[in-house]
This record gives sequence, structure tokens and C-alpha cells, in this order.
Amino acid sequence: MANGVDTCFMNPGTSEMHFVAALDRVDGLRGVLGLFEGVCSGAADGYARVTGRPAATLLHLGPGLGNSLANFHNARKARSPIVSIVGEHATAHLKVDAPLTSDIATFARTVSNCVRTATSADDVGVAAAETIAAACQPPGQIAMLIIPADYSWSEVNAGGPVVVAMVERPRRRIPPDRAIDSAAQLLSQPGTAVLIGGTAVTPRALKAAGRIAAATGVRFITARNAPKIATGRGVFQPPQVAYFPEGALPMFADVKNLILVESEKPVSFFAYPGIPSYMVPDSCAVSTLAGREQDGTAALEALADDCGALAVYPFVQEPDPVFAPEDSSELTLDAMGQTLAACLPDNALIADEMVSSSGKILKYLAAAAPHEFMPVTGGSIGQGLPVALGAAIACPDRKVVALEADGSGMYTLQALWTMARENLDVVIVIFANRRYRILDIEMARTGANGFGRIANDMIDIGRPNLDWVKLSEGCGVAATRALTAREFTEQIRDALGQRGPRLVEAVFA
Amino acid sequence: MANGVDTCFMNPGTSEMHFVAALDRVDGLRGVLGLFEGVCSGAADGYARVTGRPAATLLHLGPGLGNSLANFHNARKARSPIVSIVGEHATAHLKVDAPLTSDIATFARTVSNCVRTATSADDVGVAAAETIAAACQPPGQIAMLIIPADYSWSEVNAGGPVVVAMVERPRRRIPPDRAIDSAAQLLSQPGTAVLIGGTAVTPRALKAAGRIAAATGVRFITARNAPKIATGRGVFQPPQVAYFPEGALPMFADVKNLILVESEKPVSFFAYPGIPSYMVPDSCAVSTLAGREQDGTAALEALADDCGALAVYPFVQEPDPVFAPEDSSELTLDAMGQTLAACLPDNALIADEMVSSSGKILKYLAAAAPHEFMPVTGGSIGQGLPVALGAAIACPDRKVVALEADGSGMYTLQALWTMARENLDVVIVIFANRRYRILDIEMARTGANGFGRIANDMIDIGRPNLDWVKLSEGCGVAATRALTAREFTEQIRDALGQRGPRLVEAVFA
Repeated sequence: MANGVDTCFMNPGTSEMHFVAALDRVDGLRGVLGLFEGVCSGAADGYARVTGRPAATLLHLGPGLGNSLANFHNARKARSPIVSIVGEHATAHLKVDAPLTSDIATFARTVSNCVRTATSADDVGVAAAETIAAACQPPGQIAMLIIPADYSWSEVNAGGPVVVAMVERPRRRIPPDRAIDSAAQLLSQPGTAVLIGGTAVTPRALKAAGRIAAATGVRFITARNAPKIATGRGVFQPPQVAYFPEGALPMFADVKNLILVESEKPVSFFAYPGIPSYMVPDSCAVSTLAGREQDGTAALEALADDCGALAVYPFVQEPDPVFAPEDSSELTLDAMGQTLAACLPDNALIADEMVSSSGKILKYLAAAAPHEFMPVTGGSIGQGLPVALGAAIACPDRKVVALEADGSGMYTLQALWTMARENLDVVIVIFANRRYRILDIEMARTGANGFGRIANDMIDIGRPNLDWVKLSEGCGVAATRALTAREFTEQIRDALGQRGPRLVEAVFA
Repeated sequence: MANGVDTCFMNPGTSEMHFVAALDRVDGLRGVLGLFEGVCSGAADGYARVTGRPAATLLHLGPGLGNSLANFHNARKARSPIVSIVGEHATAHLKVDAPLTSDIATFARTVSNCVRTATSADDVGVAAAETIAAACQPPGQIAMLIIPADYSWSEVNAGGPVVVAMVERPRRRIPPDRAIDSAAQLLSQPGTAVLIGGTAVTPRALKAAGRIAAATGVRFITARNAPKIATGRGVFQPPQVAYFPEGALPMFADVKNLILVESEKPVSFFAYPGIPSYMVPDSCAVSTLAGREQDGTAALEALADDCGALAVYPFVQEPDPVFAPEDSSELTLDAMGQTLAACLPDNALIADEMVSSSGKILKYLAAAAPHEFMPVTGGSIGQGLPVALGAAIACPDRKVVALEADGSGMYTLQALWTMARENLDVVIVIFANRRYRILDIEMARTGANGFGRIANDMIDIGRPNLDWVKLSEGCGVAATRALTAREFTEQIRDALGQRGPRLVEAVFA
């Protein structure tokens, strides 16, 4: 593998043994083992989100790919570039319907922008180059390459790894002048708002947005599904589209013109009886300054210049400082938010899967040191730990913090083992409320009337309580449990002060 | 739900809240929560394998279904009947491409014999009846029903659960007389062998097979992919098709006529350079006494009568008794096999995912008390613990034993939590060799030359060692670790002597 693909998250099987054997004969491709395929796809997503470059995954046949699909779904919604290589039975073996035979291409199509099956041993190199090129197509795509085992073991490859032609990675294009002119005209009209997302929520993009906001008074809003969002003290922080429609609808109620920058017309996560799916009024005109595949940052900078904004982001609204609580009261989300905001080191990367806890925690993190936040993009459960893992592989010099719900964490807890093996600098906080709390909320919201004992049992994940300290230690990651604000603060300080993986199970009601 | 569907293994989300709420308003449907979707599909497989009846699964949208596919693949290969209900976004919400929107039907088609999307609230009852009927179609099918959320919350269902028309479960048909006559003629010819599988490996079917073998001297062989295989002392035990082709090819080398009884022409699990995919010679004539959807047991009984076999299975070849070792030598597979064979209680159910350890252990289990063995059918990793869970739900009066490799166990270890919650009578043995040992073997076999440090890292799952005692306790299941033969025997005796879940981590080289 070449072309800037330097990392492969893998869970290989028999049909991939030639690929694995080749790892020692090729320079510059790091193999990272995951003990479950969803760890690999989620890690590749995390890697892509922080670098903008594709990692590879190597998975075993249809069922192995099946286990990875949930996190590929999230990666697709994040527009993460990923080169996914899936081993297939030898071509002659396919017709006999062996136990592991399945229609791999159908598995692949559920989450992919591009699916390619190698057609001969000679074709493998060409197909790999095409797959990498497809993955790198802005804004980033899930590109799958299915390789029958006999194409790996046949003569052309016997001497070593496949030669893959160099692929030129296309750059994002700056939108045409007319798009910038149109947006500039809208800025002067009342009721205009700008929804930014994609790669247009970096510090540089937010600086341009802040300049525009200061010059024109126009409102900015941040999309929920950007791959990573810069935030924290000193950063221009537009409000994020609210998760529930009763929060999101008022944000857009008086918007007459919505300008999209690497984002889409905002929709509700789920539908509810009598509530619209789109969060903007029908009367709102929606226009695009930059599509998901374009350079929204350059567009915002051009727009800032165009509307006569000052060259420097003019207001740095310093939030009140936050202090970590040291008392021995029972742990609450407020206390956890304060501790995290007070202790987070500069330039940290946060992988989010807090689910029902995120509202309160994010409020405090706004006042934390500048950092980047990787939100839930596609809603598939199980992204938090793998995304943190992939980010930590990509950025060994940055502290990675995974904020993970106890329910969601169980889907891909195998990621902890890879963090231990690779000694990654990740602090994991498990928000242990011992419920699928979000379903408590949704049960009421969807109008499902009644909440009997049996229904409650499907939402209560206590009885027995999960012991995340033991689960973590079982995977080789040191762990502690915090029941009070003081314990949480002590443990978080301690964990952040060291290098290497550490887990804190935070038990709260 | 009605029609003999009395158990639903579920991991629901927002779009399934109405279904969950209805659990308290309907009699006779037991909801069992899994903390990961692959647990649910594997448990439904286990339930179907031991009862022959479908359980239901309830899963959340495309990605939730994605997590379940690997074990649905195994269930499909086992011909397990399963009624899989998948929630979908409300119909009006689908067009807006919400974060969790995906093509659920494509996810479903990867593993299903039948996929149906409800077309209206009124249609839900009809669609459910059709889906149950499809699942029950012999030999058993994976039938999926996708239900948009608005069809659950609309008026027609507001009063309670959907009324599902009674479905008649079709019986397996006895093959026509001419098929039995043809087989009877072949029995008298030299070089004839019978490959039995499907439901034709029960005690009753094996008794008929034993009668035929005694009367005619014809060889019987057992397929690898039956849902469950009766075995142990006093049971006619034809050899199972060997896993590797160099073992399987000699079994069939001199077979001129192969008679299939609920089985298929045998194939190699994987392909290898220069080795055929089919395990029978090209010259071998293959005929079918009973297809997978027919009653192979009745066919064998008719054949036994036809060939003048004695009414009673004539030879009960008592194997030598096996004793559990009590010495403090290092644990070996031989010692584990002896202990398990000596201690297994009568009528136990074994869920198998021993992978590279199975050869030695099965040799000893042949002399164990009569039991049923649930083999790997489709080769997707992660079936052992969920299948054990489903079997234990279905058969609370039988001891269930999961024989699970340490690598494979990690894919669906969340099953342990459900075993704890439901206090299921399951003993789990983790075969902890701390390698993907099967890949050591396959790496050599596939002709992948070279096995450098990096390749070795992708097969070594030690560094750090998984601590299965902590992982198990973390899920609420009591656990111990055995390093010597004596410890293993003591711990297995203790675990089998109690009710409720217990895990033994058996560490061996």
C-alpha cells in the first residue's frame, strides 16, 4: 500500500493471510489489530477525522464486514475517507457454497460510496489505486475493495506486495465567485443564518465565521455531523443544532434565508407524531455557499473579505473560568462537566458518545481549553471507543479523551484491548447511569403510552450492574471508579497527568 | 405476537419504542435484552436449534441490523427459523436522509431468505403472519420484517398489539417411495456412503442409521453444519467430515455413491492452492435421499425397514470410561477433554466455538454422557456464547455448556451479561491459548510464505493477555481461572454442580 495510506486496522482471517504475511515485506504500513471488526471501522473513522487522510481496514469475508458496518455507517455520514479491503474466497471456491460464502458486495453496498471486486491477480494493483482514489474523492468516501484469495496467492504477487500506482489526491475546490457574491448579498438581509459543518468548523474556518458575525451580525449555527469541531476558550462557538426538534425548531423559526457551508438542510434525528422532519420553516430559502465536497473554509474567508470584516476575529468572549469540584457529594453530570472543563489539556481530541449526558457536559466544555470534539455523526451505537483509538493512533502527541455512555460502550468495548496493546494516550470516561437513558426520554416522546415492568427491563441495563473497572482491566487498561465529585476530580487529574490508556467509571444517578 | 413465537431477543431503539411498550400488554411474549445485536441474533439461532421453533429478534434500524448479521449468517447456514423485526424511520422521515437513514432492506438481504417491509399500519398484522410463515418454511428460514415507526404509532394499533393471523407451520415431508427405493438399491453396492445432517442427526435418526449400518455395513458420515448433533455414550456416532481437506478427502476417496440425507455435497471450508473444493471425487455419484427441507429421520427409518435391518440398533459400542485428571500438571487440551467427558451431565447441550481446540476435545466427548452438540455452521465468529444463551432460555431444565475460544469469545462477550441477568444455567469454558491459533495453522496452509514480527502481531492476542475472569465478572458472571489439570477439574465439577452461569478460563499452551 502506498499513496499516503500508512495504517491498516485489521481483523484478518484465512482468506487474508497473504496480505498479513506481506506486512513484514512492505515499508511504512502499520498494522493495528482489533479483536472485533467494529473496532477497525470505527478506528479508521477516527483516523480519517483527525488527519483528513484515509486509513485502510482489512476484514474477513461477508460476516467480518457485517460486524464493521455500524461504524462504517457513522464514517460515511462523517464523510471520512476509508479504504476497506475485504478478503473473499478463491474464485473457484465461490460456486460450491462453502460455509462462509455470502454476497460480500451486498454487505459492502449498505455503507459504501464505491464497491469494487478485483477481477484478476493483475487487476489487484489497479483496483487498489482506484479504491484509494475513490476514498479520497472530496468530501471523503467509503471505498471497498473485495479481493478473492487466489488473486493474492497467484504468481504475480508471489514476489511481494502489489504495486499500486500513485494516486493524486484531489483538493477541495473553492466555490465559484457567484456563490460567494450571492451569500454576501444575503448577509445584509434580515433573517439570514449560516449553518457550518464538514471541514468548515476548524479554528481557521471559525475565525472567518467570527469575523463575518462581528461585521454583519448574522447568526451562525454549527451542524451536528461534522467530523470534528474546534471549540473551547477563545474559539468562536456558534450554537450546535439541538438534538431534539423542540430545541432545534426555535433555532430556525425566524430564519428566512439559510446559507449552507459544508452542511445539509437540518433534519430531526428521529420523527415524532405531528412534528416536521425539517427543522427550517417551509418558507425558508435554503442556498449553498459551499457543498460538502467544496472548500468551505476558503469560502468563509472570501465571504469575510467580501463583506468588509476586520482581518482579525474581533471578540474573544472569555467564558467564566471553571473549577473542578473537590467535595465528597454524590457525583452529578454538572460536577463531571466542571471537572472535565477545568482539567482538559490544550489541544485535546474528544471522542463523543455520551448520548443522554452530552447536553450538560458540552455546556461546560465550551469553557475548556481549546480542543477538537468528534461528535456522533450517523447515530450507530459503538463509535466512541473506536474513534478515540483511531484518533490516538493518528495523533500520538495529543491527549485523546473518550466520553462514553455505559450502554453504548458495550457495543465495541474490545477497543480497550487495542488501546492497551498500542499503549495509546487515551483517557476514557464511562458515564454509568445504568440505563439506556435516551430511551427513557424517547419512550415518553414517541407517544408510546405505558411503561410496564417488562418494557422497563429492556431499558434498565443494571441488574446486574456492569463493572466497567473489571471490563477495562480485563482488556488490559487500568481503571478506577468514581462515586463522588472529589473522586472523579482526583481520578481524572491523575489519568490526564499520565501517558497511556486509563479508564474512569463515573457512577451517577 | 402469537403463532408459537414466545421469545424475543432484542436491542431496541427509538423507532421500536411502541413495540417495547406493548410487551406489557401482550401475554406470552418474553423479552430478553442483549447489550449488542449479535447477541440477539445468535441467541435466536440457539433457541431455534434446540426447539425447531422460531424466536423473534427486535433490532434498531440498519446499523443495529448490521451488528447482528454475522450470527444471522450462521443461523441461515444452520437453517434456523428466525422472525427478525427491524424498526425503520417513519415513512415521511425517510426522504430527508436523517443520520440513521440507511437502506435497511439491503442490510437484510445479506442473510435473509425473505425480506418484507410493512406497507401500512393495517398491513403490519398481515406482514407479521407472512414473516412467521416464511421463517417456518422447512428447513427453516431467516425472515425479516421491516416496520416503519409510524405504522406502530398510528390509530389502528393504538389499542394494543397487532393481531397476527394464525400461521400453520408446515411439516417436513417424507421423501417419496422412489427416493427410498433408489437409496436401498445403492446400499447393496460397494463404495456407498451416507452423509447425514440437518435434523437427521437426532437420537432417533441416529438409531435408524445405526440399524442400517449394522444390517448393510454401509458407511455413515456426519455433516459439519447440522443445527445440533446427538452424540455421547451409547449413541451411534458416525465420523464427522474433517475440517481440513487433507482429512476430509481420504474419508470420501473410495466413495462411489454418496447418499445425502438433509446435507449437501461436502466442500472444504476454505480453498487452498491445488486442492479441490469438493471433498468427493469427480467420479462419485451423488444422490439425495432427503433434501434439507424433508424429513430425513423418517426417510432413514423407512430405509432401515426396507433393507431388513433389525428393529433395534444392535451394537452399542461402549467407549472406555474417561476419568478427570486430578494432578497438578500444566493444563493441556487432553486433560480438558478428559475432564469435560468425565463430568458432563446427561442430556447437556454444548455450544461449540472451540475453533483450533475442537479436534482433541471432540475425541473425548464421544465417551461423555449422551448430549447434543451445536457446531459452528456458517463460520462467522462470535456464535458460541449467544447460541448457548438462546439454548439456555429455550431449555431451562438442561445444562448448557459453551466451549469457547478466547479469540472468538471476544466478538460477542456481551452475551455473558444476559446470562447473568436471566440467571441461565450455563457453564462457559474459555480455551485461552492467547493466539488466533487457527490462523497460525492457516498461515502455513495458504502458502503465505514468511511470518515476520508484524504478521505475528496480528495473530498473537496476548500482549496484553485478556483477563477472562475480570471480563466475566464485569458482566456479572462468577468466574475462575485454571492453570493446572487439577484446578480445571475442580472448577468444572464445581460449576456443573451448581445452577446459574459460571465461567472457567482455562489457560493452556
